[in-house]
Amino acid sequence: MSSGKINVSVENIFPLIKKFLYSDHEIFLRELISNATDATLKLKHLTSIGEAAVEYGNPKIEVKIDKEGKKLHIIDQGLGMTMEEVEKYINQIAFSGAEEFLEKYKDSAKDSGVIGHFGLGFYSAFMVASKVELITKSFKDEPAAHWTCDGSPEFTLVPHDKTERGTEIILHIAEDSLEFLEESKIKGLLTKYNKFMPIPIKFGTKQEALPKPEDAPEDYKTEYKEVENIINNPNPAWTKQPTDLKDEDYKSFYRELYPMQFDDPLFHIHLNVDYPFNLTGILYFPKLAADLQIQKDKIQLYQNQVFVTDNVDGIVPEFLTMLKGVIDSPDIPLNVSRSYLQADGNVKKISNYITRKVSDKLKSLFNENREDFEAKWNDIKIVLEYGMLSEPKFYEKAGDFVLYPTIDNTYFTLAELKEKLKDTQTDKDGKLVILYASNKETQHSYIESAKEKGYEVLLLDSPIVSHLIQKLEADNENLTFARVDGDVIEKLIQKEENQISKLSEDEKESLKTVLETIVPKETYSVQLEAMDSKSAPFMITQPEFMRRMKEMSQSGGGGMFGMGNLPEMYNLVVNTNSELATSILSTENEDAKASLVKQALDLAKLSQGLLKGEELTSFVKRSFETLK
Amino acid sequence: MSSGKINVSVENIFPLIKKFLYSDHEIFLRELISNATDATLKLKHLTSIGEAAVEYGNPKIEVKIDKEGKKLHIIDQGLGMTMEEVEKYINQIAFSGAEEFLEKYKDSAKDSGVIGHFGLGFYSAFMVASKVELITKSFKDEPAAHWTCDGSPEFTLVPHDKTERGTEIILHIAEDSLEFLEESKIKGLLTKYNKFMPIPIKFGTKQEALPKPEDAPEDYKTEYKEVENIINNPNPAWTKQPTDLKDEDYKSFYRELYPMQFDDPLFHIHLNVDYPFNLTGILYFPKLAADLQIQKDKIQLYQNQVFVTDNVDGIVPEFLTMLKGVIDSPDIPLNVSRSYLQADGNVKKISNYITRKVSDKLKSLFNENREDFEAKWNDIKIVLEYGMLSEPKFYEKAGDFVLYPTIDNTYFTLAELKEKLKDTQTDKDGKLVILYASNKETQHSYIESAKEKGYEVLLLDSPIVSHLIQKLEADNENLTFARVDGDVIEKLIQKEENQISKLSEDEKESLKTVLETIVPKETYSVQLEAMDSKSAPFMITQPEFMRRMKEMSQSGGGGMFGMGNLPEMYNLVVNTNSELATSILSTENEDAKASLVKQALDLAKLSQGLLKGEELTSFVKRSFETLK
Repeated sequence: MSSGKINVSVENIFPLIKKFLYSDHEIFLRELISNATDATLKLKHLTSIGEAAVEYGNPKIEVKIDKEGKKLHIIDQGLGMTMEEVEKYINQIAFSGAEEFLEKYKDSAKDSGVIGHFGLGFYSAFMVASKVELITKSFKDEPAAHWTCDGSPEFTLVPHDKTERGTEIILHIAEDSLEFLEESKIKGLLTKYNKFMPIPIKFGTKQEALPKPEDAPEDYKTEYKEVENIINNPNPAWTKQPTDLKDEDYKSFYRELYPMQFDDPLFHIHLNVDYPFNLTGILYFPKLAADLQIQKDKIQLYQNQVFVTDNVDGIVPEFLTMLKGVIDSPDIPLNVSRSYLQADGNVKKISNYITRKVSDKLKSLFNENREDFEAKWNDIKIVLEYGMLSEPKFYEKAGDFVLYPTIDNTYFTLAELKEKLKDTQTDKDGKLVILYASNKETQHSYIESAKEKGYEVLLLDSPIVSHLIQKLEADNENLTFARVDGDVIEKLIQKEENQISKLSEDEKESLKTVLETIVPKETYSVQLEAMDSKSAPFMITQPEFMRRMKEMSQSGGGGMFGMGNLPEMYNLVVNTNSELATSILSTENEDAKASLVKQALDLAKLSQGLLKGEELTSFVKRSFETLK
Repeated sequence: MSSGKINVSVENIFPLIKKFLYSDHEIFLRELISNATDATLKLKHLTSIGEAAVEYGNPKIEVKIDKEGKKLHIIDQGLGMTMEEVEKYINQIAFSGAEEFLEKYKDSAKDSGVIGHFGLGFYSAFMVASKVELITKSFKDEPAAHWTCDGSPEFTLVPHDKTERGTEIILHIAEDSLEFLEESKIKGLLTKYNKFMPIPIKFGTKQEALPKPEDAPEDYKTEYKEVENIINNPNPAWTKQPTDLKDEDYKSFYRELYPMQFDDPLFHIHLNVDYPFNLTGILYFPKLAADLQIQKDKIQLYQNQVFVTDNVDGIVPEFLTMLKGVIDSPDIPLNVSRSYLQADGNVKKISNYITRKVSDKLKSLFNENREDFEAKWNDIKIVLEYGMLSEPKFYEKAGDFVLYPTIDNTYFTLAELKEKLKDTQTDKDGKLVILYASNKETQHSYIESAKEKGYEVLLLDSPIVSHLIQKLEADNENLTFARVDGDVIEKLIQKEENQISKLSEDEKESLKTVLETIVPKETYSVQLEAMDSKSAPFMITQPEFMRRMKEMSQSGGGGMFGMGNLPEMYNLVVNTNSELATSILSTENEDAKASLVKQALDLAKLSQGLLKGEELTSFVKRSFETLK
């Protein structure tokens, strides 16, 4: 029998840490700048509580490329370290604390700034450097220290003559990482990760025009001076109080976040909560283009002003991932699986908070300036409709501000719509029928028929509208939606009165027989209706239920399995009170009768967009001939 | 001055390894089964070369859930380990070798089976287990060993009375990982990762019907026996020689890979190369649905029959990621960034090899049975067309098999097309004009005009066809493509002869003036043409260049910036030799003249699908009135 310790030697494990810790090598810069920021903010804290007897001043962090020397310098003016502290924090403690940390972040929080919290971040320097030097002078009255390590576990630690407070880290960039000596590369990384860090970051210099002297001659040429190039905004809008910001400030921060974006945002929502979790941020409703896919991954996630990711899936409710903006929260576990995020209680609370803030904002926008809200409706509706379908908590509130526009651009809430239509559009069974069209152009003739009866027609043209309608019907008793081309208008909203038929039962029977011999029955079932004699004599309709199930099946997540592939079936509604019906009956010549029916069918198909190809060519040719 | 070793203690680093090594905890099962497979295959090798004096037999691997005991067992019948070997491989060496390994896989190959190569894979068990036991009996005549470790670096190692050869690993599943005691979870993982591993894997039992006895009575009830449930196919088709497989074998393997897939594949390509890299696999051309996005991520990548991923971006040329099938290669670096993959010489060779095999296969299919190839054209064209645009090496070969179908389903290669059309469709400047339509239905009348002249019209309806045409024109001198509705047919292919105009210059001038007062000039420019008197009197065309640039701009990656948003502009072509032209000129009454022009414009718009909404409703209404 034996027992002992598993042999995990420093020599074996060091390369693993260096190479495996981060999937992305460029992370080293973010880590080192986070450390420099922490060192500076800690000094600020100590001076403010009187525990450091030094001037805090206006410290900054400097990043410097030494291309010839193949070195990258990161220099801060923070609290620095004494020789003993280097020994302790860099040599001894850097790799401890992992256990407690992991207890806190249970899953595989492999990446990201949080690792910096226990010192491992510093070692990420070895991912790109063959040798690392650390020269540091504490704010305490002690000599500076100079630590050097070539990537093996051996280090040297000697005194140094540095006199200014702070830490300088010198990376001797390895041959396989020379890209990190390119100015454009470093600038790109600083802009990506550190654009809003709280300490100014200097990277090189830039030219700034000097003011023109008062006694400048006619031919005065502008003079320039070299000034420090600060790459970040240490006080981004989301860290301020909403009361300190004007609308223009929000807009200009939007442009700072998205320099390539030309449109202004429609409105913003300032997030600010510190219990039971910490979260600040600003969300913007952008003008949404037709293609929703392109719109995602625009919200940026920060932790204490350090950029983390632009994938906020699982943190922000899915329907809001179409928005833009920033969220800053130290309380979100990073790089864990999506299913883990969804199960995490804290994250769930954050997601619910965001949903609630968004619905509160929408409600107040609606109440404060309804006209403006209506004007924005078309740009925001897809987000709101998707939210109603996917977030029960949002659906509950949506009644207060979700709008239903008519064909003529009047906007109703569902409650207003019910009130407005209850007298005119309730059918004989007590059901309130809401008429809608999905396209003003292609359903024009059907919309006209409804309007002639004095009915309102909504314009519901989102791709997910079938799903939304289905849900509204399920949740509102005695409410039903009917698309205007689902049947003749008299049948869509059935009233008590019955139109008297000009034709006798025998005549109807004989008309139906005629029609059924001529009209192809695979596609059309003939339906005779006694309507106003002025209504269209022939009309093609498609029953609501089948069409809606097909649409839901095609747009996913509803309808019935396989219905998306069913062939299209239509009704051919013939108005028995029309003059044309009488003409058809009275035409003796069989050929003339057939051509009359066919021409009428062609016209009905035209109205429903069904006359195509050879049929259309021949229709147009015939029509040209009658014209000349 | 001091120097020393950075303190990376076992206690500090062990939890890091356990939790950080893999982003995905479920990977442990794949790792342990890979180890079991290696142990079994190594024994096979040793017996085959006479270095192990034992019977190899028919070893299998067993996975067993002990739900009450909260344990998961993985048992193999491989070569096993002696006490000394456990001490060496599990306690000492597991964590060594990292350095050389990392040299080989330079980037962050954090995940995947390759880690198993140096023993770390075994420790992934601690991601889900609070305690791990290993009971192992070597094929050598030595007592079995029993190793136990509770996740701290301390272990115990004692003899065990196990007598059968092989290794049993017992995971005491941790409280936060109880899901791995669910039969459905383990079954799912085995099916995902181990479906084609080379050693049979037993997981539970299943019932199998006994054969009906010959003297069975009338009311005989089928009897069942419990048999081992082997979850994998140890000899998948791709590991066999193409000569040993029939077409039906490829199809049945396709169904094994995609059990939910009902369509048969169109054809397959068997990949098999061992120099300069090792790669086997089978690619299938599936029937492609309209939505290309859905089709991606269907090719599975294996390494030595262990499933790795279904994302083969960067390994397979992009246009072939729409295919299905498997690729098995130990030579592909895993979990490295896409840009790294693209720069890797070996991967580039693999990608080129696959491209070449695919084009060779297409060429041989074309040559062996052209009729069959033509029948499949519609289902494969999008892949091939996309390949021509994105892979220069594929484009070079494409001339041999890429087809251009006509409206009447005759298929030509580009060379055949040139030969066939050169006499009829070369214009007066010596340019060969290839006519095409994008839609048989909506361009019907234009197609008819071209056919009447005896011209061939291609049907090119892929979404990327504008890009392809642009490329073909650039690479083929004196070749031009023209969509049939780009102009009147006499102008699309201009010949020497000029049609004589019935109208005098004065009459033309006066006709043009009349038309330009009535026809809206924001959308239509009037173009008078002396054509055959039987040709359509009014016709709307849209010039090829503008339309193509717009389309390219809309489908991305071509055209001119911003052109996708330009308003639509059309030509209204009026046939001055038509009776209608004469009628318009001779109509005295201004209203009658205007209504004649408007009706003719409506008919021309109908042919081009431009008569919509209110205009269409009113056209249909007028037409119904003339009908009765």
